[in-house]
Amino acid sequence: MRKGRFLDEADLETIAIGAAILGTGGGGNPYIGRLRARELPRQGLKMEVLSFSDLQDDDVVYEVGGIGAPVVGIEKFEHGDECLRALRAVEHQTGRHATALISSEIGGSNALEPLITAAQAGLPVIDGDGMGRAFPEVQMSTFMIYGIPGTPAALADDKGNSVVLASTRDVYWLERLARQATVEMGAAAGMALAPMSGSQVRETAVPGTLTLARQLGEAVLEARAQRRDPVGRVTELLGGVRLFEGKVTDVERRLERGFTRGQVRVSGLGDFQGESVKIDLQNENLVVWKGDEVVASVPDLIILLDLESGEPITTEVLRFGFRVAVLGVPAHPKLKTERALQVVGPAAFGYSHAFVPLPDIGVNRSTTASKEAADVLDSR
Amino acid sequence: MRKGRFLDEADLETIAIGAAILGTGGGGNPYIGRLRARELPRQGLKMEVLSFSDLQDDDVVYEVGGIGAPVVGIEKFEHGDECLRALRAVEHQTGRHATALISSEIGGSNALEPLITAAQAGLPVIDGDGMGRAFPEVQMSTFMIYGIPGTPAALADDKGNSVVLASTRDVYWLERLARQATVEMGAAAGMALAPMSGSQVRETAVPGTLTLARQLGEAVLEARAQRRDPVGRVTELLGGVRLFEGKVTDVERRLERGFTRGQVRVSGLGDFQGESVKIDLQNENLVVWKGDEVVASVPDLIILLDLESGEPITTEVLRFGFRVAVLGVPAHPKLKTERALQVVGPAAFGYSHAFVPLPDIGVNRSTTASKEAADVLDSR
Repeated sequence: MRKGRFLDEADLETIAIGAAILGTGGGGNPYIGRLRARELPRQGLKMEVLSFSDLQDDDVVYEVGGIGAPVVGIEKFEHGDECLRALRAVEHQTGRHATALISSEIGGSNALEPLITAAQAGLPVIDGDGMGRAFPEVQMSTFMIYGIPGTPAALADDKGNSVVLASTRDVYWLERLARQATVEMGAAAGMALAPMSGSQVRETAVPGTLTLARQLGEAVLEARAQRRDPVGRVTELLGGVRLFEGKVTDVERRLERGFTRGQVRVSGLGDFQGESVKIDLQNENLVVWKGDEVVASVPDLIILLDLESGEPITTEVLRFGFRVAVLGVPAHPKLKTERALQVVGPAAFGYSHAFVPLPDIGVNRSTTASKEAADVLDSR
Repeated sequence: MRKGRFLDEADLETIAIGAAILGTGGGGNPYIGRLRARELPRQGLKMEVLSFSDLQDDDVVYEVGGIGAPVVGIEKFEHGDECLRALRAVEHQTGRHATALISSEIGGSNALEPLITAAQAGLPVIDGDGMGRAFPEVQMSTFMIYGIPGTPAALADDKGNSVVLASTRDVYWLERLARQATVEMGAAAGMALAPMSGSQVRETAVPGTLTLARQLGEAVLEARAQRRDPVGRVTELLGGVRLFEGKVTDVERRLERGFTRGQVRVSGLGDFQGESVKIDLQNENLVVWKGDEVVASVPDLIILLDLESGEPITTEVLRFGFRVAVLGVPAHPKLKTERALQVVGPAAFGYSHAFVPLPDIGVNRSTTASKEAADVLDSR
């Protein structure tokens, strides 16, 4: 029998930190998820992680995660079994039992949600996800981008409601109907999507991202303990660029159609004194502007870290006076193909600028996920 | 093998007229349904109606119908298989094949919708429904009132989307989630609800209402042909009261959260010269007011007929200058028990007045559906 790596409480802490970093401001607050997750080993439940090489071609892998607005996630604690009930509803619909779960998005609480659900269901979780970050909408995953059908999918809420999206015209209708049902459910629900085979997961997912999240968390804690620049460690580990440093001078944030939307202004400090940037939000950080110039843009990752502690600053806690570093990190090659840019590029978020990728220096890329592999996917 | 009554094109015409009368202003325009339904015999499809006595205890009867705002129903023609796809989605969820269908509401287009769906599926339709009229919300049926679970239910739209409401906290959440999904689907969808046994149908449904609709239509056509007062014939056949006659002087109508809401003012003519009434709408006619006094109220039926032709006037065609008779018709006893009034009485529509039933002179009540039988149901 295959056996993956079992997570302990320390892993949950580091994954939560790393997931918040990769959440690029969104994906839900992972610390609440961590509080829930750490109860599981105490109840004798195990959290097992499998790498891509452990996957069998005929594995039945369901994508699970929370859906909703991060602002709500803080105030509305989940009942605890929403994703599990959503999973059971899709399994009932397809008649196929899950053999493993995978995260829709590694960024934010959705790094931990599948671990919790998998522990409850006695299943392993795959080391990878569909975004390598967080994105606000369901269709914005490498699974959907590369043709895995999203339906049947299911939603379950804290009130005992569960809804199966049996079939939809396309993934945009899946997003639309799921989002509207989530709003009705109180702006937060557990979601499970149609199953994939092991080989489909290997082909389409962003690999190794649970491990990456853990490494990021470990690096931050280590740098803090040694009083060595945690922001620098994160930048280095992700192969990113420090785009800006400054003080948050204005935050405009509103809940709109189930999303947190808004803008943040940051005034420069240190080397950036006298300059300022504006960051657009839709759950996640979308675009960094310096005046009319785009400094960084989706799908590349825009990450705000506390200048001293390296603590990731998520959309819902962001406020005036925070001193932040703004990092730009190149997105995974699977998010930058022509096909992917139609779904997660600037135009998909209503922008008119072309995507100019941040320089990708190839740090921390899993070997199976090279640009060549992404190009093969893109050309299908 | 049991064999019901097969409907012909003439039946469809009379049922459409009767259903519009019983729709009390709502339930969707049945004439569009009639246009669709009359194509079916031409395609060799049969519409068979079974009476309660033909039902087997172990029949598997699904409730089907359209959901949405009547105003939309006129402009947005259905694709034609919405209810059938909704039925298939619930059958898939329950694993139980339908042996018969029944209408959610006899009033309006939902009298014909199950006939069309049944013909497409090769199934019979039961002579009865869950309202004996039309009501705006899903939980307002005698099925739900007397404890038949509504879930799993399903919705399907003209775009190829189908959504299964797998389980909901209660019937109000079923209504809420179904309504919201319908709004997202363009304010019109086909719906199918959880199956009932034959004995459950006999116990909870309002019996004989397809036959009643046909009789009403026949009476109107006959009275028109003989130039004898059609309004009088309808009033007599339904055991109703002519509450008012007059000219429509004002119509206020808006689409709100998937419902048509508004008010109509009618100024008296003939015996009613000098008086005026106001009628409140939520898809259906809810309450007739004379000043501050309630003249008639839900769940009793408030029916507007053209003064000359006896043509029923539905909410969506109502306009200034129409000369109308306002009829009050006592609701079926199953809608007037204590239990029923909690769901379809004035308070359920936000009113503070107590329900004072119109005098029930016992005309045209099926023998199995006496007040005593309703009281037995109520006391469970």
